[in-house]
Amino acid sequence: MKSPRLGLVPRRTFLGQLSLGAAVLAAPWSSLRGATATPGRRLGLALVGLGNYSTGELGPALRETEFVRLAGVVTGTRAKGEKWAQDFGFPTTSVYDYATMDRIADNPDIDIVYIVTPVALHAEQTIRALQAGKHVICEKPMAMSVAECDQMIAASGTAKRALTIGYRLHADPHHQELMRLERENEFGPFKKIVTSNGFRLNPRDGVKPWRAIAALAGGGPLMDMGVYSLHAACMAAGAAPIAVTAKEEPKLRPEFFTDVEETLNYTLEFANGAVCTGSTSYERGSGHFRADAERGWFEMAPAFSYRNLRGATSKGLMMYPPLRQQAKHLDLIARSLIEGTPLPTPAALGRRDMCIVEAIYAAAKSGRRELVKA
Amino acid sequence: MKSPRLGLVPRRTFLGQLSLGAAVLAAPWSSLRGATATPGRRLGLALVGLGNYSTGELGPALRETEFVRLAGVVTGTRAKGEKWAQDFGFPTTSVYDYATMDRIADNPDIDIVYIVTPVALHAEQTIRALQAGKHVICEKPMAMSVAECDQMIAASGTAKRALTIGYRLHADPHHQELMRLERENEFGPFKKIVTSNGFRLNPRDGVKPWRAIAALAGGGPLMDMGVYSLHAACMAAGAAPIAVTAKEEPKLRPEFFTDVEETLNYTLEFANGAVCTGSTSYERGSGHFRADAERGWFEMAPAFSYRNLRGATSKGLMMYPPLRQQAKHLDLIARSLIEGTPLPTPAALGRRDMCIVEAIYAAAKSGRRELVKA
Repeated sequence: MKSPRLGLVPRRTFLGQLSLGAAVLAAPWSSLRGATATPGRRLGLALVGLGNYSTGELGPALRETEFVRLAGVVTGTRAKGEKWAQDFGFPTTSVYDYATMDRIADNPDIDIVYIVTPVALHAEQTIRALQAGKHVICEKPMAMSVAECDQMIAASGTAKRALTIGYRLHADPHHQELMRLERENEFGPFKKIVTSNGFRLNPRDGVKPWRAIAALAGGGPLMDMGVYSLHAACMAAGAAPIAVTAKEEPKLRPEFFTDVEETLNYTLEFANGAVCTGSTSYERGSGHFRADAERGWFEMAPAFSYRNLRGATSKGLMMYPPLRQQAKHLDLIARSLIEGTPLPTPAALGRRDMCIVEAIYAAAKSGRRELVKA
Repeated sequence: MKSPRLGLVPRRTFLGQLSLGAAVLAAPWSSLRGATATPGRRLGLALVGLGNYSTGELGPALRETEFVRLAGVVTGTRAKGEKWAQDFGFPTTSVYDYATMDRIADNPDIDIVYIVTPVALHAEQTIRALQAGKHVICEKPMAMSVAECDQMIAASGTAKRALTIGYRLHADPHHQELMRLERENEFGPFKKIVTSNGFRLNPRDGVKPWRAIAALAGGGPLMDMGVYSLHAACMAAGAAPIAVTAKEEPKLRPEFFTDVEETLNYTLEFANGAVCTGSTSYERGSGHFRADAERGWFEMAPAFSYRNLRGATSKGLMMYPPLRQQAKHLDLIARSLIEGTPLPTPAALGRRDMCIVEAIYAAAKSGRRELVKA
């Protein structure tokens, strides 16, 4: 069954992608309008975790954003935080560590907390930030499990603060075109979807990176890279899959991937008969997505990168000016918060993807077709 | 009339793109096999002109080539030439200036001379290099006029040395796919072609660049950038156009473009009914090519750049590993010379394009449809 059209929701919110009850549609923080943002003021954001993604992508993005600015950091390395404070012009009193981050509650400069730490920390840090009265953006994958997602969403409801996931590709015009094609049924339903996403993960200075440690990452490439493919497949299908099969490939580097899968192939079955064949890997570099419908197709490669995305449909090349996805995504979120409108990438999307991830791991383990719980 | 299929010519030579008499098909230098190259030895190449294209593209390409190596330079700046000799490991006796370049005749290390100077110098330098007994690669556009092209081709015949044009895109797999689609008629004939190519040309350090000086460039963006579009249109149509119309746009910077056109729009009519609508500009950046047939289409953007070309056909994205076009093109040429096979980008192609250029300038001046002479 195709998810019902949510005609009352503004199209740009993309909530049409979700099979959700009406309860999620209202923005619970809309009553905070004016309390969190006065016109002309940019929302203040604190980054939690100053690793590669913060340094290489989110920091630069926050120099370009119109509706949000960097106002604080949470880091285990005080000196690093003070350097950020200097570079971005916020007071060093807005530099926190993981023990003191709850004090963000008392910092009126910070409206949003962005969790950019290993997956194992997402749930705890998200809940603490929500309890501190802040809106939260949490990086993907949302958490270690659907159970954790449920706790995070509950905390968001209790705190009446927004919880949204770092699905930056919702801000990319190629992916927006995919959502539009599905929404307007321009080519007919996408029935055949093929996708892969992976890169070669190597030790860093001889040390195993957190992505290869199950206790920190919650899983392997499926959690880290596969989730992009799953997410885009749901965009194309306009719904979550109902069942999956999966098979792990024999490991080429079993000594390195002791904890997590190295390469995992899967299929997703959708209620309307659409099928997605996917592959995700920490061994092979790739980033491809193709969806075929009766009257047209959509294809991208690279499909999921930070930049230089390229794609075409059966009508021709998709040509869009370059953009910094993270800056546009952060602005979309900030505007939703300021205007009290539905979030572009709400927590329900993150939870949905974790439901698929859990079903795929279950299928890889059981060797059987597994249903996706809703 | 569509050009006849040249069934006897190896497909990879792309001579099928030309409306040529059979006389051109034999490689006149094939008798030199063994004289110019012994197996295992790379051909020696001398660059004439050490400007941006030599420095930024051809020099680096010549570090990657398998069948040709840099063996000399011709430059007006001796010190620059000696630096190149040091960097590329050839003797300083192989550094020439424009007065002494004829002495290349006595240099057995040099098999090929590559002319990379302003257009006004192409004919004279090409003819001198041919008379010095060397094969010549001449940058595009081939010369100031069709008359000059004829002199150059005649000199090649007299000297029994090869003359080929720097049409690097013949080495690019996207453009090779366009040629294949036309050759194999996979989508039916391409009947509607749309293309643009341009960039914003500015003064350099307050000085007018040679590209904006008619006496050096022979014309404006049509000569420099438009020629790529014309060339690709002929690839798609499988023939040269029979007639053209053209109109120059009013100049936005008339004080800068005193000598040459600033933006020029044109149409090409092919014998089979195909029509190409094109635009070329020193004001607007672009680089697009699309060809539509009854059963499919081909599209690229950027279509003509040195790197990061992207494209799709009605079958899907074209995905090719990155390559350095110039290195691959130089190797294609060197292999032709070594093996005595037809050149990938013979002078006849350069002359054909100059015939179209002259017709377009005539049409822009007359305001009438002008025939393209063969």
